Amino acid sequence: MKIAVLGGDGYCGWATALYLSNQGHSVAIVDNFVRRQWDHELNAQTLTPIRPLSDRLRVWQSLTGKTIESFYGDVCDYEFLAATICDFEPDAVVHFAEQRSAPYSMIDRNHAVFTQVNNVVGTLNLLFALREHRPDCHLVKLGTMGEYGTPNIDIEEGYIAIEHNGRKDVLPFPKQPGSFYHLSKVHDSHNIMFTCKIWGLRATDLNQGVVYGTMTDETAMDEALINRFDYDDVFGTVLNRFCIQAAIGQPLTVYGKGGQTRGFLDIRDTVRCIEIACDNPAGRGECRVYNQFTEQFCVRDLADMVVAAGRKMGLSVDIDHLQDPRVEAEDHYYNAKHSKLIELGLQPHYLSDSLLDSLMNIAIKYKDRVDASLMFPQVNWREPRNDRRLQMGKTARTSLAAPRFENGAAESLVRARTKSVRSKG
Amino acid sequence: MKIAVLGGDGYCGWATALYLSNQGHSVAIVDNFVRRQWDHELNAQTLTPIRPLSDRLRVWQSLTGKTIESFYGDVCDYEFLAATICDFEPDAVVHFAEQRSAPYSMIDRNHAVFTQVNNVVGTLNLLFALREHRPDCHLVKLGTMGEYGTPNIDIEEGYIAIEHNGRKDVLPFPKQPGSFYHLSKVHDSHNIMFTCKIWGLRATDLNQGVVYGTMTDETAMDEALINRFDYDDVFGTVLNRFCIQAAIGQPLTVYGKGGQTRGFLDIRDTVRCIEIACDNPAGRGECRVYNQFTEQFCVRDLADMVVAAGRKMGLSVDIDHLQDPRVEAEDHYYNAKHSKLIELGLQPHYLSDSLLDSLMNIAIKYKDRVDASLMFPQVNWREPRNDRRLQMGKTARTSLAAPRFENGAAESLVRARTKSVRSKG
Repeated sequence: MKIAVLGGDGYCGWATALYLSNQGHSVAIVDNFVRRQWDHELNAQTLTPIRPLSDRLRVWQSLTGKTIESFYGDVCDYEFLAATICDFEPDAVVHFAEQRSAPYSMIDRNHAVFTQVNNVVGTLNLLFALREHRPDCHLVKLGTMGEYGTPNIDIEEGYIAIEHNGRKDVLPFPKQPGSFYHLSKVHDSHNIMFTCKIWGLRATDLNQGVVYGTMTDETAMDEALINRFDYDDVFGTVLNRFCIQAAIGQPLTVYGKGGQTRGFLDIRDTVRCIEIACDNPAGRGECRVYNQFTEQFCVRDLADMVVAAGRKMGLSVDIDHLQDPRVEAEDHYYNAKHSKLIELGLQPHYLSDSLLDSLMNIAIKYKDRVDASLMFPQVNWREPRNDRRLQMGKTARTSLAAPRFENGAAESLVRARTKSVRSKG
Repeated sequence: MKIAVLGGDGYCGWATALYLSNQGHSVAIVDNFVRRQWDHELNAQTLTPIRPLSDRLRVWQSLTGKTIESFYGDVCDYEFLAATICDFEPDAVVHFAEQRSAPYSMIDRNHAVFTQVNNVVGTLNLLFALREHRPDCHLVKLGTMGEYGTPNIDIEEGYIAIEHNGRKDVLPFPKQPGSFYHLSKVHDSHNIMFTCKIWGLRATDLNQGVVYGTMTDETAMDEALINRFDYDDVFGTVLNRFCIQAAIGQPLTVYGKGGQTRGFLDIRDTVRCIEIACDNPAGRGECRVYNQFTEQFCVRDLADMVVAAGRKMGLSVDIDHLQDPRVEAEDHYYNAKHSKLIELGLQPHYLSDSLLDSLMNIAIKYKDRVDASLMFPQVNWREPRNDRRLQMGKTARTSLAAPRFENGAAESLVRARTKSVRSKG
C-alpha cells in the first residue's frame, strides 16, 4: 500500500514511517521540520541525539534496502500539499503534521492562534486536496483522547447513542477539551466529519492517548535511526519525563494531587494501530473514530510505578506535588472505551517494569544531555502570557540541572508545593 | 451600560447598535467594512441603498442627539482590538464581527479557510483581549442554530443532561454543523467555553436562527439609517429572498423538497435579545447558551405563506423546487428549545401577513435595484470549487433578471428542477 506520513520526522511519525516501510508498504514522509525549530525556540533538545532526516533515510535504505521518499514542505501550503498528493498518489495518508503540545498552545496568544490556525488549516487543506485529487484515499488522522475531557459518564469511541425525551439518535460524543491544542483537534474532528458527509471522503480519526517509550524494532536497528525523546515541560509526555527525572535523581513533578486519569500506550502500539487502520480502510463517506490507547492510569500511580522501578535499580526517587499549572479535575471518574482496535487485531504492549527499566537506562546513557531545569512546568493555564521563552534564554546561560526560580509564575508554583515524598531504595 | 458592537456596520449589527443607543446605552461600533467589500466581490448589492457609516452616524446624532463612537479596524488585528477595548472600556461586547454566510464559506478552499481563520482568530483575539484588559466584561457572542444540525432528538439550549450506563452528566449538546461557516461557529463555541473555565470570563453564546425583516423603529427614522437587505444566494436569508422574488415576479427558489425546518426570528427580536443578554450578564466563569429564535418553519411552508401573501397583493407567485445545492436532510425531526430569552422578557414579533406585506413593499419600492439572477443558487456543497465569482463577472455584463445558465453547476441544478408549482392570484 502507498502510505504518506505527514509529520513523518516527528516522534510518532518517524516510528510509524519506519514501521510501515518495514512491513513492506511504500512510504513517503512529508515534513517541514518545524518540530526541530521548536526545539530551538524552547531551548529544549530531545534527550536522544536525532539525525537529520536525509541521514536517517540513507541509513534506513542501507540497512534494509527499502526507500522512503521525502517531500519537504508545509501542509498549510496548499499548492505544495496538492502537488505532493498528485505526485505520490497515496492509498492512505497518515496525518501527524500538527502542533501537538498542550503547554505550547497555552504559552500566549501567539502560540494559541498559531496552534489552531496551523492545525485547522493544514487539515482543511488535506481534506480539499483529497477531494480534488485523490477522493478514494483513506485519511488516517491523529486526534487525541484529550478531546473528550473528563465527563462523568463512560467515554465511547467517537459517537454516543442518546435517548432524550423519548426519542433516540447516535450523535458525536460531546467534547470538553482542556487546552487550545486539544481544542484544535476538536475543530479538526468536526471538519473531517463534515467532509466525509458532503464529499464521501473516507476517514479514521484516531483519538490517541498519551504515548510513552522511544524504541521500536526499527528505530533500535541503528543509532542513526534513534527516535526523539522529549522530556521538557512543553513537549515531554508525562511517563517519559518521570523516567528521566528518576534516572538523574530529580523529583518526579506530579501536578496537583495526581488523580488525573488518562489513557496511555506504548509507541510500539501507536505504529501498529496506524497499520491496522490503514489495512482496514473506512468506507466512502464514513468517519470512524477509534480510541487509541491500551491502559488507563492516573498520574500518581504512574509516579509510584517509577519510584518502585527506580528502587529496584538502586535509585532514590522523590515525588514533588506541584500546584497544577493546568486547569483540570484532579480527581474524577474516567472510563474510556478502547475495544475497536483490539477487535481489529491490536495486541497491546502493556506497561511493564522492563519498559520502565529500558526508559531509565536510555536516560542514564544520555544523561549528559539532560537539562533538569526543563522539566519544571512554566506554562500556567490561568495566565494569558507566560514568559517561558525569555526565561529559557536566561537559563541557558546558567548551570545545568539547577532548578530555575527566576520566573514569577514558576516561583509561585514552587511556593505552592503541597507535598514531597521521599522513597529510599 | 457601555456596549461595543463588533461588526456594527452589518445587517444585525447596525440594527443592534441603533437600538442599544436609543435605549440609552453608550455604544461603540467596531468594524472594518469587509461586508461591503464582499458585496463588490460577489457583484451583489443590498436591495436597500445603504450609506457609509460616517453618514449613518452623523444622521443618527442629528436626529436623536445620541453619539455612537466608531473604531475602524479588524478584530483579527490583536493590537487594534486590544487598544479599542482599553480605550472604550466596554461593560459588554456584542460580537457580530464574523463571516456569516454558509454559501460564502462553501465557494472553494480559499473561502472555507478564510471563514474559519477569520472567525476563529477574531474570537480568540477577543477572548485574550478581555482576559488581559477587561476580565469582567460580558461577552455576548453570536452563534447560530445551525451549530446543532438536525438531530433526531429535541435540541436543548447549549447543554444536555445525559444518562449513560447508569451515570449522569450535563454536557455540551453534540454539534453537527452543515457548512464550513457553521463549523467555524462550533469552533468558537468550544473556544469560548474553555476560556470561561480557565480564566473566569463571562459569556453568553446566542445561537441565533434565521433572521428576517429589515426595519426596526430606529432604522425606519430616516432613509439614511436604512439597514442592508440581502437577497442574493450567498448572503440573502431565505424569507427575505422569497419576498423579493415574489415582488418582482420571479419564482421562489425552494431547495429540494423544502422540508428543511429551522428556527426564525424578526430582526426586531434580534436587537431585543441582545439587550436582554446585556442586561442580565453571565456570572464569572459562566458560559451560557441561549437559542435565539421565536418560531420554527419549514422552507416549503414559508414559500406557501409568501405565495398567499402575494395573492392578497394581486401578485402571481411561482415556486421552483431546485435540486438542493446543500447537503442536508430535506425531511427531518426538528424541535429546538427556546425558552430562556422568553423567560428573561422577550416578547416576540411573530411572522405575520403585515410583515410579509411590508417586506414585499420594500422590494417593490427598490425593484429597480434588484438583479434577479443573483437569487439562483450557484454554490454547490458537493463541489470543492464553485466558479461563482467569475460567472458573476460575466453576468454583470448581461441583462438584469435573466436567469444565468452559463455555469455548469447551475445548469445541472436547473436540469434537476423537480417540480414547479404555479399559484395564480
